[in-house]
Amino acid sequence: MTRHTDLTARIRARERVLGYWITLDSPVSTERIARTGYDYVALDAQHGLFSYEGMLRGITAVDAVGGVAWVRVEANDPTYIGKALDAGAGGVIVPLVDDAAQAAAAVAAAKYPPVGRRSYGPMRSALRVGPKPADSNDTTLVFAMIETPEGLANVPEICATPGLDGVYVGPSDLCIAVGGAFPNDPAVAEVFEAALVTVREAAASAGVAAGIHTAAGAQAAQRLAEGYTFATVSSDLTHLEQAAADHLAAARGGRGTADDGTGY
Amino acid sequence: MTRHTDLTARIRARERVLGYWITLDSPVSTERIARTGYDYVALDAQHGLFSYEGMLRGITAVDAVGGVAWVRVEANDPTYIGKALDAGAGGVIVPLVDDAAQAAAAVAAAKYPPVGRRSYGPMRSALRVGPKPADSNDTTLVFAMIETPEGLANVPEICATPGLDGVYVGPSDLCIAVGGAFPNDPAVAEVFEAALVTVREAAASAGVAAGIHTAAGAQAAQRLAEGYTFATVSSDLTHLEQAAADHLAAARGGRGTADDGTGY
Amino acid sequence: MTRHTDLTARIRARERVLGYWITLDSPVSTERIARTGYDYVALDAQHGLFSYEGMLRGITAVDAVGGVAWVRVEANDPTYIGKALDAGAGGVIVPLVDDAAQAAAAVAAAKYPPVGRRSYGPMRSALRVGPKPADSNDTTLVFAMIETPEGLANVPEICATPGLDGVYVGPSDLCIAVGGAFPNDPAVAEVFEAALVTVREAAASAGVAAGIHTAAGAQAAQRLAEGYTFATVSSDLTHLEQAAADHLAAARGGRGTADDGTGY
Amino acid sequence: MTRHTDLTARIRARERVLGYWITLDSPVSTERIARTGYDYVALDAQHGLFSYEGMLRGITAVDAVGGVAWVRVEANDPTYIGKALDAGAGGVIVPLVDDAAQAAAAVAAAKYPPVGRRSYGPMRSALRVGPKPADSNDTTLVFAMIETPEGLANVPEICATPGLDGVYVGPSDLCIAVGGAFPNDPAVAEVFEAALVTVREAAASAGVAAGIHTAAGAQAAQRLAEGYTFATVSSDLTHLEQAAADHLAAARGGRGTADDGTGY
Amino acid sequence: MTRHTDLTARIRARERVLGYWITLDSPVSTERIARTGYDYVALDAQHGLFSYEGMLRGITAVDAVGGVAWVRVEANDPTYIGKALDAGAGGVIVPLVDDAAQAAAAVAAAKYPPVGRRSYGPMRSALRVGPKPADSNDTTLVFAMIETPEGLANVPEICATPGLDGVYVGPSDLCIAVGGAFPNDPAVAEVFEAALVTVREAAASAGVAAGIHTAAGAQAAQRLAEGYTFATVSSDLTHLEQAAADHLAAARGGRGTADDGTGY
Amino acid sequence: MTRHTDLTARIRARERVLGYWITLDSPVSTERIARTGYDYVALDAQHGLFSYEGMLRGITAVDAVGGVAWVRVEANDPTYIGKALDAGAGGVIVPLVDDAAQAAAAVAAAKYPPVGRRSYGPMRSALRVGPKPADSNDTTLVFAMIETPEGLANVPEICATPGLDGVYVGPSDLCIAVGGAFPNDPAVAEVFEAALVTVREAAASAGVAAGIHTAAGAQAAQRLAEGYTFATVSSDLTHLEQAAADHLAAARGGRGTADDGTGY
Ligand SMILES: [Mg+2]
Ligand SMILES: [Mg+2]
Ligand SMILES: [Mg+2]
Ligand SMILES: [Mg+2]
Ligand SMILES: [Mg+2]
Ligand SMILES: [Mg+2]
Repeated sequence: MTRHTDLTARIRARERVLGYWITLDSPVSTERIARTGYDYVALDAQHGLFSYEGMLRGITAVDAVGGVAWVRVEANDPTYIGKALDAGAGGVIVPLVDDAAQAAAAVAAAKYPPVGRRSYGPMRSALRVGPKPADSNDTTLVFAMIETPEGLANVPEICATPGLDGVYVGPSDLCIAVGGAFPNDPAVAEVFEAALVTVREAAASAGVAAGIHTAAGAQAAQRLAEGYTFATVSSDLTHLEQAAADHLAAARGGRGTADDGTGY
Repeated sequence: MTRHTDLTARIRARERVLGYWITLDSPVSTERIARTGYDYVALDAQHGLFSYEGMLRGITAVDAVGGVAWVRVEANDPTYIGKALDAGAGGVIVPLVDDAAQAAAAVAAAKYPPVGRRSYGPMRSALRVGPKPADSNDTTLVFAMIETPEGLANVPEICATPGLDGVYVGPSDLCIAVGGAFPNDPAVAEVFEAALVTVREAAASAGVAAGIHTAAGAQAAQRLAEGYTFATVSSDLTHLEQAAADHLAAARGGRGTADDGTGY
Repeated sequence: MTRHTDLTARIRARERVLGYWITLDSPVSTERIARTGYDYVALDAQHGLFSYEGMLRGITAVDAVGGVAWVRVEANDPTYIGKALDAGAGGVIVPLVDDAAQAAAAVAAAKYPPVGRRSYGPMRSALRVGPKPADSNDTTLVFAMIETPEGLANVPEICATPGLDGVYVGPSDLCIAVGGAFPNDPAVAEVFEAALVTVREAAASAGVAAGIHTAAGAQAAQRLAEGYTFATVSSDLTHLEQAAADHLAAARGGRGTADDGTGY
Repeated sequence: MTRHTDLTARIRARERVLGYWITLDSPVSTERIARTGYDYVALDAQHGLFSYEGMLRGITAVDAVGGVAWVRVEANDPTYIGKALDAGAGGVIVPLVDDAAQAAAAVAAAKYPPVGRRSYGPMRSALRVGPKPADSNDTTLVFAMIETPEGLANVPEICATPGLDGVYVGPSDLCIAVGGAFPNDPAVAEVFEAALVTVREAAASAGVAAGIHTAAGAQAAQRLAEGYTFATVSSDLTHLEQAAADHLAAARGGRGTADDGTGY
Repeated sequence: MTRHTDLTARIRARERVLGYWITLDSPVSTERIARTGYDYVALDAQHGLFSYEGMLRGITAVDAVGGVAWVRVEANDPTYIGKALDAGAGGVIVPLVDDAAQAAAAVAAAKYPPVGRRSYGPMRSALRVGPKPADSNDTTLVFAMIETPEGLANVPEICATPGLDGVYVGPSDLCIAVGGAFPNDPAVAEVFEAALVTVREAAASAGVAAGIHTAAGAQAAQRLAEGYTFATVSSDLTHLEQAAADHLAAARGGRGTADDGTGY
Repeated sequence: MTRHTDLTARIRARERVLGYWITLDSPVSTERIARTGYDYVALDAQHGLFSYEGMLRGITAVDAVGGVAWVRVEANDPTYIGKALDAGAGGVIVPLVDDAAQAAAAVAAAKYPPVGRRSYGPMRSALRVGPKPADSNDTTLVFAMIETPEGLANVPEICATPGLDGVYVGPSDLCIAVGGAFPNDPAVAEVFEAALVTVREAAASAGVAAGIHTAAGAQAAQRLAEGYTFATVSSDLTHLEQAAADHLAAARGGRGTADDGTGY
């Protein structure tokens, strides 16, 4: 059993799992982060600062230290999903899923026939689970992001999508979706927290995993304690900027100031 | 007066100056760090994870937020020094300088005739101080690293090199140079601290700047308080790895463990 | 007020504005061109010779000299529009818009909810206007290209699209759209010029900006004199080829010959 | 007559033509392979290990030895098709075509008006056939891949699509499409071979070319002997892995073992 | 014991070891080759088609499948040797070593003080053997290439260099060094073979490893049988070109023709 | 006879030859420029904006349109010279040659034994003149730059170096070398022009080519008329910046202003 298949089993068993979120096209730092012991490292191809080549470099870097790489794909599009999986991603997080039909489309894009419509051409993925379509279908993870008003309204149906391994909350978009003027808008804190409950309860009812993006380890611990089954700490860019600002403040005898709220 | 020429004046006046050390080929994080307010950002072409193209991208990223970029060059070699300056570096930190002749060679490589032997071909540097060799010669900073037994022994002569703007301590190499088995080896802590005093007093006597590499902002503040005139907080790779480890520990309810002593 | 927000205001006031068109993945030349003083530099992600990474490099290079970068996106697709804006583009020029619904889709892709459906994840764009969605919505420019028969027919409705800042003529495609056998086909010169009048009058009626692509500065001046409110001189590749050909001809005592009509 | 236009003529005359399939972003090996004498070199942008920049580098490398480059595009999408052709591809192989409407869309994306809807902006393609849209339309090759159940069912209608130069079998996907559990599944060998007959007979009836992917030169020869008019030997990655494994086995006194069936 | 330290022990015990030689900047093929089971993969930074970034990518790719990467450095220069080791190479093959002083310089460049003069700044190498200089010194392999008339004359003294782990024959240069008009020149076959005997006997006498470059697995087996202790099969570029030519010949019913003697 | 060998013959016959100078890492513009008809295109690895990978891309681009590429190498160092030639350069322009010994070293680095000491490992160069060392030695061009006081003083001895094909004036450095405060300093115009006469007369006496860098085609024509045998028009970066500035001035009704004297 590889780390990839083991993690897939843990996700499907709704065990508690921790990940880290990568936005930088910087394979050496990605590799170092993967080595610290997170269960997975998620490469952000939607808002992150890379495209295909950076994604490929990042997955390779995670592999170099024996980690597991997932990709948040650019969009719910078979081309992007296929490229991420061919490059060796163990799973895909698909943004902006509004309803069960879109969730089913995401699953279809990630699975070979007869389950789905993924085109055959494993490249680095052949390193991971062998060339048989069924083996790949069995172990590839697919998550639908809940971050729009429609997605929130349809979360039970989305969770019930055959082949979907779970849902994943994008808190910045979701906060705006529930009426926030900006991420973490205190004016909508209650409705936002209620939405988080809705999502995780829907996942629990359907028996699928419930994941969420968090800005820090402590927040990840809190969400897992509340009932989310996996959480990602985010992100390299914001953590690095914060560290640099904190060191500057320490050098000058004050406190860091880089908190500009972009921890989406 | 540009930020570059202003910083040069401050260095030459032995004012207190703070910088940050970049090892990653990741322009977007370099840009964010430069924006936090450090007086300079130093790109490490010796041990950092990039070569010419990464250096060029990094300097451009620093410029994009109005910062000042210096380069720690690969070696005391006119080709590397010329390439860094042509790419727009405001100054060069030259490693492993053993004596005054090597320091003079570093200066010669960084200055056009008749002062030195730099070959004319400004590229991005033409954006900064104009195409006249004398203008460039006047504002380009050159630092010699003190990090070998020979360099430490010859630090007064090195400081007296015409055109040299200061010395810069590489603490990891210097610690090994004074007999340490590894950087920060407590067995040589006293002799190491004595060496630091030797370097900064030599610089003070010669009226040139004394810089040093530090692992954190607080340590930078301490070195400046002791009499160093500039200090660099280092580095993006180690800070990011530490942040990821700290968040993981927090998520798991423990403490970070990434301190592997590589903060050279 | 930043250069970006200032330029947005000028566009919306229908002031006269000049830009330059970049097709090369060559950040240093892009930077030099931006420094010459154009109001904006437009990076062509549709027909230009780069993809995401080149676009990111190009925008950073424009920022390095304090310029404003816009992007002509690959297609009217939320993924491309979001990536360009996340990378720091101040505005997007959206190709091949056929009708008001497509124009509205372009606007929706460029604006966060509740105005549109842009997903939240500012990266370099956070450097520019702050992380609040409304601030970004207020200052991001969106232009619809008029270059198809349908687009020309529907230009009044397109101009009336809420949130659209203007229309932009792609003369090569438009010339073919009106029946030309090739760009600048003299056989359709009259109908083409009439189409240009149609577009700029529609924009004027709707109170939005009217932009156009031109092959040279003199032509840009002419179009602005006619009533277009902004014009882009195009492009680095054709101008450089022409310059090389002209110098060769001068060296050989003749005239340049690179005019192959590809100044689309 | 250029090699490109000559090859186009041969394809349209249903002459026998041989190609090689590139998945690596490795221009120097692509160049060497192109030099061995294949009639075309196909760069795989769907499953290959590159995106736009790699495709551009690969086409340039093929041109450097006077070869002809085609591109298997990422998807049946005008943006991908336009980018490949602008970059200088002599033809496009469009994956996953299910019916005549999709085939017509592929043709429309590859041809300028009034034949299709390709947007005008030749870049490297201007090096090849001149800037006149009609010239480009006349010589650009478009192939539809037959590799889904729907595509197989609709192959006569697809072959009849005006402007389509031929069909191209993707054997791995097609094998799965006819019920195989994996590529080359012996359990479906007969139905698979029957499908190949169906495709080439449909092409012959329509007078268009019939192409197919093969794992080796001998297999290519066999398919051409059966009636396919062009065949591609695939691929650099699998052949190189096989060669390395064979040399290792020879060094150790055994036989190579790299045959993992991924020769899709 | 890691694969790296294990291999180091085997080399020092003069066990038989097999490697593969990489010249392409193509990490995915490098990774696939490393996975076939060679004891090491050597990346050629002297004549290969990459510089620092390609070397870094290649080493990461080898790590991704648990292999061991060595680097043939650009030249016997501390900057190149340090960069290769910082990037994570387990050993360096240093070209064009003429005498014992040059061999000693190569060792000094690869070892930290007090053994040598390598500057401290582990990056990826910190992933491998920990940050203590002595640990790195103990496990890093250093080989001197014998490929010049001087090197051949001085091979016993070179083999006796403290800290040197072995010698490595570059057959193309060595063939020319002994008077050949080109690599594998049959006119000098006897003197060339005698030189090979000289080198391996000198290594055996000194108790260090003797390595050699070969064009194929069978030749590697032969050299190991003769008494060489390690052999590298070379190279990806030539093997891939040969495979493509062979498939073309097979498709056309003839034989491959890519043998142009460049298997240096 | 290839274009490369034909050009070599013309240079050695002291025929009039024209080239263009590339500083941008922008292969598509390099390709377009090469297509305009210059006899050679020189890629500047010393002051240009690229390193090895950019040089390789540039040479490939020149080959793609059947041109001849030379490289001005980073320094008079066998590693740089070997890399440029392995990558396929037809000749090297070696900067900062001070005397005959340095010129002889440059020749030795460019020629295989027994003529010189170039290490054997042709890569792209094998595409050009075949793998036999003597063939390569016969056709590879080597030029020594005259741009220092010492080089000017020793120009007759430099011209007499066996194997050297000519000298090449770097006017910016040479102007400074003769006492100018900046390139084109009118204060030293006479002594500068006298130096140019010295160089070309020394070349004529020795029967080798005399080349020179020029800022424009008309200046190239003038230098050829005076007796220089080849001239390079320089450069893409300055010409493109000038073109952009000229178009801006034209659009605004004024004159271009980009003439900042950096046409080194
Ligand atoms: Mg989101
Ligand atoms: Mg150091
Ligand atoms: Mg258009
Ligand atoms: Mg397929
Ligand atoms: Mg050799
Ligand atoms: Mg010069």
